[in-house]
Amino acid sequence: MQNLVSVPVDIAYRLFNLGATALVGAAAEGRCDIMPATWNCPLDYGPSKVTLVLDKCHYTRELVEKSGYFALMLPGKAVAKQVMQLGTVSKHDDAEKIEKVVAGGAELFNLPGTDIPMMRGCAAYAVFKVIPQKENEEKFDLFIGECVAAWADKRVCNEKAHWNFAGCDDLRTLHYVAGGHFFVIGDELNLPEYD
Amino acid sequence: MQNLVSVPVDIAYRLFNLGATALVGAAAEGRCDIMPATWNCPLDYGPSKVTLVLDKCHYTRELVEKSGYFALMLPGKAVAKQVMQLGTVSKHDDAEKIEKVVAGGAELFNLPGTDIPMMRGCAAYAVFKVIPQKENEEKFDLFIGECVAAWADKRVCNEKAHWNFAGCDDLRTLHYVAGGHFFVIGDELNLPEYD
Repeated sequence: MQNLVSVPVDIAYRLFNLGATALVGAAAEGRCDIMPATWNCPLDYGPSKVTLVLDKCHYTRELVEKSGYFALMLPGKAVAKQVMQLGTVSKHDDAEKIEKVVAGGAELFNLPGTDIPMMRGCAAYAVFKVIPQKENEEKFDLFIGECVAAWADKRVCNEKAHWNFAGCDDLRTLHYVAGGHFFVIGDELNLPEYD
Repeated sequence: MQNLVSVPVDIAYRLFNLGATALVGAAAEGRCDIMPATWNCPLDYGPSKVTLVLDKCHYTRELVEKSGYFALMLPGKAVAKQVMQLGTVSKHDDAEKIEKVVAGGAELFNLPGTDIPMMRGCAAYAVFKVIPQKENEEKFDLFIGECVAAWADKRVCNEKAHWNFAGCDDLRTLHYVAGGHFFVIGDELNLPEYD
């Protein structure tokens, strides 16, 4: 819980407004996996909901379907290498995927109330309960989750989910395009609300 | 079409991988509207699909439902003021909303094959045909669209939807958080694909 502050589930959607690439974590039956997912998006607030695209080929999807829960983490710039590693190897092909990423420098830890492993170096963490939608899941690989808990790293975010990355470049969010090509979130821009 | 290059619909989803705040445009029965929407996300490729959250209160939603089409534009930093303006006033409350934004400096133009007005100063433009999903639309305000045409500004993006914002800060994408608080997309980060 080092550096983490709890974010109310009603406003946790704001963590995902930046449109950052997330890590998806899931655990079931003593198994776990973590994979990157750029296709995540807020869907609602009070409590917050998100959409998440999980292709049928992903090991993580089976764990989400078995447990009914997934976590989203927003990895920072300093762990971009681990994000690539988690996205390049499937646990279907290498049962030791997570152990190898840990051997490569990733640190995993637990948060209260969930057995989903979290990766250090993320700007925010949230746990979602799946709202089952069979047609969306089968036809579009689209999952809907409702937030049950959320945390942000207080070095870059407060309990109202307002970001301030100045002075902590390592936690700037990643925005993946394709082929190992990311952008990092940049400067803030404050505009008066229009009258 | 000044500065715009066509992006194949199969890979147009990549334009939305950055997770940027979009403008949603729609037109029907001689009426049109443009509003910002942070909650947009890729859903599939070949041809590209996206999800888009459109609350029932939005004037734009009625136009999308009547026409079966919407456009997404990715406004750049230089038009952030117009984005705020388009998001603060509803055309339900002010029938002259669009004319006032134009009077405030926004420039609208047309692209081939669509009557949806586009706003200059965006890094990319795409038109989507709604794939009707009544339950998603009614229960979650969630629309699914399939890309029928896409363009990007060649000063910052090529026809493969690869971005390069160096030297053109005005077109850096906006990532909205809340209350007039945006972030602008920052530097790129290239990582080797992991072996």
